[in-house]
Amino acid sequence: MERLKQRILADGKIGEGDVLKVDSFLNHQIDVAFLCEIGKEFYKRFQGIHVDKILTIEASGIGVAAITAQYFEVPVVFAKKTKTNNIYSDVYTSQVYSYTHQRSYDIVVSKEFLHPGENVLIIDDFLAKGSALRALMKLIDSAGAHTVGAGIVIEKTYQGAGIDLRNEGLKVESLARIAKLSVKDGIEFL
Amino acid sequence: MERLKQRILADGKIGEGDVLKVDSFLNHQIDVAFLCEIGKEFYKRFQGIHVDKILTIEASGIGVAAITAQYFEVPVVFAKKTKTNNIYSDVYTSQVYSYTHQRSYDIVVSKEFLHPGENVLIIDDFLAKGSALRALMKLIDSAGAHTVGAGIVIEKTYQGAGIDLRNEGLKVESLARIAKLSVKDGIEFL
Repeated sequence: MERLKQRILADGKIGEGDVLKVDSFLNHQIDVAFLCEIGKEFYKRFQGIHVDKILTIEASGIGVAAITAQYFEVPVVFAKKTKTNNIYSDVYTSQVYSYTHQRSYDIVVSKEFLHPGENVLIIDDFLAKGSALRALMKLIDSAGAHTVGAGIVIEKTYQGAGIDLRNEGLKVESLARIAKLSVKDGIEFL
Repeated sequence: MERLKQRILADGKIGEGDVLKVDSFLNHQIDVAFLCEIGKEFYKRFQGIHVDKILTIEASGIGVAAITAQYFEVPVVFAKKTKTNNIYSDVYTSQVYSYTHQRSYDIVVSKEFLHPGENVLIIDDFLAKGSALRALMKLIDSAGAHTVGAGIVIEKTYQGAGIDLRNEGLKVESLARIAKLSVKDGIEFL
């Protein structure tokens, strides 16, 4: 998605450890009008695939998932990062390893909101090493539902997970694919 | 907002400690089409007031804030619950006491995303004792910006904060106002 690449080049910042920050439009401040363009692009890329529900993970996936869901006309469910006493009934659980925070945490979805046979599309802001995406797929699998694909705003292809997942048969649609990233040399798209 | 009241009566659940759960459409599963109605209603209620930006708090405020922002045609900023290494520059900080989790936590907003003189509308899912709302107001105040009002999906009026804040001069628009709530007697709207 050309406009997204331009936006990343214009507004993205590369931080220590060669981390890409897109806080100004995607995951701290949200440019909602721009997210609408992103949502429409996801809709286009998954056209012809029946989607019952969109699944994402709190917190930074929620904005893009909610805006995108308008075009699919389906509800969003977001996985929560810890089991809080705000969840009634039983939950599906899986584990994510966060390389940013260097620790593991559980994510949960109430069994009320994922059902056997449902076609679930995962939407998330980033795909790097794939830990969050695989954890979401596990929740869907636990429910007896089906992951029909993953719509990712920014994929870091050099971290390999997107390639592995495509080889395993998952339809992964990433709107910007970054092949190289460093403070020294900047951003190179695939 | 009559449709919201009906939805709360139909789908809300009252849990232990007389807590209202609206996980099925507002803060775990999100009924995006219904949130669009909510967003339009907020827009109507704050018509004539200049809004530069919408501020909310992760995680459950993000969905309603992002959808609402489409009608105001402004960006959303969401306060983050801890200082992570995903935030570059300096941040504004304030403290929230969570009665649900019985602990305090810090919320932060990067100084990049709140500016002196901006008119900021707060959007959140719940208003009970007002700790989160006052913490968001403090962030806005720290930036030298102006809180033009608060749009709340569900206010528990019996917990008093909404009344206090209105007495202090804040324009608080709550789409459903709950006067009484108990497992025994159910829900009574104001």
